[in-house]
Amino acid sequence: MGVYDVDESKVSRTVYEVAVKLVGDQLPVPFTLKDLTVRRGVHLGSLTGLPFKAKGLEEQYSLREAIDVLLDEWKELKPDVFINVITTEYGRAFNDINALYKAIEEDNRSILTASQVYAYAAALYSKKVKPVAFVNVIPTPLANDEAMIQLYRECNGIVLGDDGATGATPLTADLLEHLAERDRKVKYVVQFNIGGNTDFLALSLPERNLMKEETKSSIVKDILGYDAPHFIKPTGYLEPIGDKKYVAMHIEYYTFNKMIDEIFISARINDSPALAGLLVDLARLAKVALDNGFKGTVYEINAFYMKKPRPPGSKSISKIIAYSNLLNWLKQLNALEY
Amino acid sequence: MGVYDVDESKVSRTVYEVAVKLVGDQLPVPFTLKDLTVRRGVHLGSLTGLPFKAKGLEEQYSLREAIDVLLDEWKELKPDVFINVITTEYGRAFNDINALYKAIEEDNRSILTASQVYAYAAALYSKKVKPVAFVNVIPTPLANDEAMIQLYRECNGIVLGDDGATGATPLTADLLEHLAERDRKVKYVVQFNIGGNTDFLALSLPERNLMKEETKSSIVKDILGYDAPHFIKPTGYLEPIGDKKYVAMHIEYYTFNKMIDEIFISARINDSPALAGLLVDLARLAKVALDNGFKGTVYEINAFYMKKPRPPGSKSISKIIAYSNLLNWLKQLNALEY
Amino acid sequence: MGVYDVDESKVSRTVYEVAVKLVGDQLPVPFTLKDLTVRRGVHLGSLTGLPFKAKGLEEQYSLREAIDVLLDEWKELKPDVFINVITTEYGRAFNDINALYKAIEEDNRSILTASQVYAYAAALYSKKVKPVAFVNVIPTPLANDEAMIQLYRECNGIVLGDDGATGATPLTADLLEHLAERDRKVKYVVQFNIGGNTDFLALSLPERNLMKEETKSSIVKDILGYDAPHFIKPTGYLEPIGDKKYVAMHIEYYTFNKMIDEIFISARINDSPALAGLLVDLARLAKVALDNGFKGTVYEINAFYMKKPRPPGSKSISKIIAYSNLLNWLKQLNALEY
Amino acid sequence: MGVYDVDESKVSRTVYEVAVKLVGDQLPVPFTLKDLTVRRGVHLGSLTGLPFKAKGLEEQYSLREAIDVLLDEWKELKPDVFINVITTEYGRAFNDINALYKAIEEDNRSILTASQVYAYAAALYSKKVKPVAFVNVIPTPLANDEAMIQLYRECNGIVLGDDGATGATPLTADLLEHLAERDRKVKYVVQFNIGGNTDFLALSLPERNLMKEETKSSIVKDILGYDAPHFIKPTGYLEPIGDKKYVAMHIEYYTFNKMIDEIFISARINDSPALAGLLVDLARLAKVALDNGFKGTVYEINAFYMKKPRPPGSKSISKIIAYSNLLNWLKQLNALEY
Repeated sequence: MGVYDVDESKVSRTVYEVAVKLVGDQLPVPFTLKDLTVRRGVHLGSLTGLPFKAKGLEEQYSLREAIDVLLDEWKELKPDVFINVITTEYGRAFNDINALYKAIEEDNRSILTASQVYAYAAALYSKKVKPVAFVNVIPTPLANDEAMIQLYRECNGIVLGDDGATGATPLTADLLEHLAERDRKVKYVVQFNIGGNTDFLALSLPERNLMKEETKSSIVKDILGYDAPHFIKPTGYLEPIGDKKYVAMHIEYYTFNKMIDEIFISARINDSPALAGLLVDLARLAKVALDNGFKGTVYEINAFYMKKPRPPGSKSISKIIAYSNLLNWLKQLNALEY
Repeated sequence: MGVYDVDESKVSRTVYEVAVKLVGDQLPVPFTLKDLTVRRGVHLGSLTGLPFKAKGLEEQYSLREAIDVLLDEWKELKPDVFINVITTEYGRAFNDINALYKAIEEDNRSILTASQVYAYAAALYSKKVKPVAFVNVIPTPLANDEAMIQLYRECNGIVLGDDGATGATPLTADLLEHLAERDRKVKYVVQFNIGGNTDFLALSLPERNLMKEETKSSIVKDILGYDAPHFIKPTGYLEPIGDKKYVAMHIEYYTFNKMIDEIFISARINDSPALAGLLVDLARLAKVALDNGFKGTVYEINAFYMKKPRPPGSKSISKIIAYSNLLNWLKQLNALEY
Repeated sequence: MGVYDVDESKVSRTVYEVAVKLVGDQLPVPFTLKDLTVRRGVHLGSLTGLPFKAKGLEEQYSLREAIDVLLDEWKELKPDVFINVITTEYGRAFNDINALYKAIEEDNRSILTASQVYAYAAALYSKKVKPVAFVNVIPTPLANDEAMIQLYRECNGIVLGDDGATGATPLTADLLEHLAERDRKVKYVVQFNIGGNTDFLALSLPERNLMKEETKSSIVKDILGYDAPHFIKPTGYLEPIGDKKYVAMHIEYYTFNKMIDEIFISARINDSPALAGLLVDLARLAKVALDNGFKGTVYEINAFYMKKPRPPGSKSISKIIAYSNLLNWLKQLNALEY
Repeated sequence: MGVYDVDESKVSRTVYEVAVKLVGDQLPVPFTLKDLTVRRGVHLGSLTGLPFKAKGLEEQYSLREAIDVLLDEWKELKPDVFINVITTEYGRAFNDINALYKAIEEDNRSILTASQVYAYAAALYSKKVKPVAFVNVIPTPLANDEAMIQLYRECNGIVLGDDGATGATPLTADLLEHLAERDRKVKYVVQFNIGGNTDFLALSLPERNLMKEETKSSIVKDILGYDAPHFIKPTGYLEPIGDKKYVAMHIEYYTFNKMIDEIFISARINDSPALAGLLVDLARLAKVALDNGFKGTVYEINAFYMKKPRPPGSKSISKIIAYSNLLNWLKQLNALEY
């Protein structure tokens, strides 16, 4: 197992040291984490603007060389599944695989993000060593990038994504499905949320906020079949709220006979544990998919676990429907006893 | 089409007159309702304790005779589907079909409710004239009564029920499914609701409240797989709230790593329109089921539309799953273009 | 300092032992509590129906004798202030002081509550030893009983009460004042609350619930000047909610031009700490009042700290106004530096 | 009575025509409004960036000349009270009265706002014709500008402001006072709000949003005595919400013994009627103040009706306290029967 970061206060420390510093006063930290040291990864500005001292491999190397450094380490670590949980960064899909190749070859740091470089490196490893899965739980478009899907298909690997569906968005998805099934016409949806962890701090920077807004908003049209007016975006950062974010939602809809019903939701949701639970599932499901010979991406997994669950062209669906489909997919693979 | 009531201010008036008096200041009332006159039905105490002057056929007749009166009228009206929307009453299942026969024969008014007498009469009609469906959207156990299921099976009819799933309970069902699918352990569920219509007034009488509590509470264990502590019951009556009831819910659950998340919901939901929408669907689906030769009851319909959706022995499931199953059932019947 | 209880699992133990058993896993318990032993008090059914084994002094003694036992103990303890925090019990005001004397003399256990016997005993002590204050933070009418007020006035003591204003009721009082000051016409008020501590368990018994409903509802008419329709009562008991009760409120009101605004409140409020904070204040203020020669009761203190803040005939007012009046009262006594 | 606007679709029409177009389908519009024609006022960019075609007097005239145009009209209209309800604009206080004079003389349009020009013109009118009151219910600092206060004092007029206290902010003020009086230590305050009227559209422009954030945030420190972390700002615009804005609040605070309580508020509040009610009061109170010879500004009025209720140097206080002070002020003037 390997762990990568670019925060100077973490690189070269053991995960045990890092965890004790962050949550040692609240949770027990297992001693086995003393055997795991944080390695230096790729930065490409993913922490710029945030209060961390960050240094990536690309400060010493070209991107090509940095990728080679990673590949050498992975040949020893022998990973099956990569999980990308870096802070929300601003990135755009390449769509054309040649544009992606060209950006890497030309060391074009202005259009490449850390997530894309990691995903590219994992694809190379998949080609040269053995098929792997790359799970992307942040908004950077990877499973939503035709170029990445093609790259993984060609190297027999799998890319899953994008943006892990935790917190209020999957709840909103299921609520909208609930209303749609009763022929309620949604007048509008408001979803505010505010937290005090690093991800909310990052989202207070406008470009990063935009990334999140895009993955969150797609559910409305996909599930309802029409684009009900909505305001769904990360709303603010307030340090003492900590990791247990505050979510406020309001939906107004027309019921039978054009009368109006109203729903108001207030919630406090622990952000990191919600994601951690998904990661355990995703690592297992990614391995199941690899073992069963899947390539490119797997919509059945993405549809339940991701906010923007695609190969491009596919749709957001309600999470309860997605779960039912996922169970059927596993049943057909005889994989439910996994 | 026929309409039955026992409220003296409605019997023998046209539905137009009744509707104008109730909602004429808020909604347009179609003139065609002038052709429909409210007929006298069976009372058996279903309005006792409420501020209405009520008189049922059973004041002039024995139950057997009252049933004959109804059958004569129905031979003219030629119904396919009966819909039972009387106020929540206190009633118990017979389970043994002979006990039911005996109660009717012996005119045993102390253990028979209006719903049971209507359902019995409709079954007789089904046997003698043509198969019909009886849709029960109140809590009295009909589809949950083995005796009724057997009766309808024998007369080639269908009984659907019990207790139409409107308002907060189907929402709770989908929320619990949402949590269960993420392995959240529910610590407890609270669901309060208060309204100002006749049904809430009836539910302020303890025996009737109990009927409702039973149908609402069954979802928790059925969906979660364990009986999470819950307080789910009609909570009060307050006249100026009117038909747009106020629902307050609170769920606490353990997320990954034993931390606690909290959800609070406040809602205003129009009670009657929510039910009216279901009735339109149910009338159509009941006819589809009859036309396709179903007998007894149809779990696929009950599971989505009812709070206690059974033949006895079956389970409450999440509404989104139930909807997906219902669509599959309709697809198999080639009935989706209905 | 002395402590009285009738719960057999507490009587004769030290407060330290009792506290460790109740909250030892959550809070540090001071060792000094080892010097304080729980004494046996008066029961008179105040725990009947609740899951405690209770035994009061009145099982061995007549009420007159029990009062003498207490007086003997108090002559050693030399209290200035008594605080009554027993579980909500059902009790009625005497109003006529002779009726109260007679009930004691005749040992009439059917109309006397534990609170009334304690208050009577403290008045006797006030007369024979030195003036004391009796602070009643439960709903039993003491400060709302003309008989008690007269009794305390005659013995130079003070009785403060009734029903400590914690939780949702003082919040409702201030919200109603807020609306009244803007000329908003309140259409209705709903206030639900549910908890998992002994007090909520007691309130699930109808007679005790009634006591609470009466003290809570009086605020609506007193503050608004008209009796807006309201549903304000303890609503349920659910053990895993514990001491941090869940409160749901909803207010609809007419704003300018007859349009309707809506407020929904959800809250989680620690019940015991909220009361504990008040008790510290009340003990100090009661002593201030005694030292300044007050007798009978003190409206300025009651108005802020009590749900039914009277001598009979006085009114509930908004808590913010009451606080401002209390500060003025203290200023006039030159007691703010206390 | 006179009405000024710069929106080309309103200028030169009767108020009747304008009102019918805006709310004619919802509310009756009085015919007497046919006698009132909208006059052209000062723009200075107050509608820039919003979807209106606007044209101000300053397009034809220098600011000095525009002010003379207004004065001439007012000499006919003979106003006692001016009310400024223009859309939130970005503006800064002058503080130095000479800087204000200089900006007018030099026609310095880049630092003057429409509100400031109107207030200046009304002050001139106050000096030349008769004392008037200028009521400012938007955030532009007028009563918070030392220069304006001095100007009005010198011309025997009154300026009241700033920013009418409607909606969630006065509610927050009273809630914070409620907590402060119980010694609750506020951990943080979140207040989101979103609406669909022009004011929310204007607030989606960052500079204007900032104006609002400043007036809203000042209450926290003023009332609690410490600057509890808070996120209080207009949060978004969503057209179908219309004038009945959605407000979501969350407060976490430490209760006795360091335990944590939580409050969540959801509200729907009609924005314009809430303000309209205040304007009626303010017009009357302003006249009372003039008639009693007040000059400059009147803190007693500002403190209840304004979000930033000052002469500079004074404090925000709880609204309930402010109301009580206002009643005392009126009592001392023998003006309560006004």
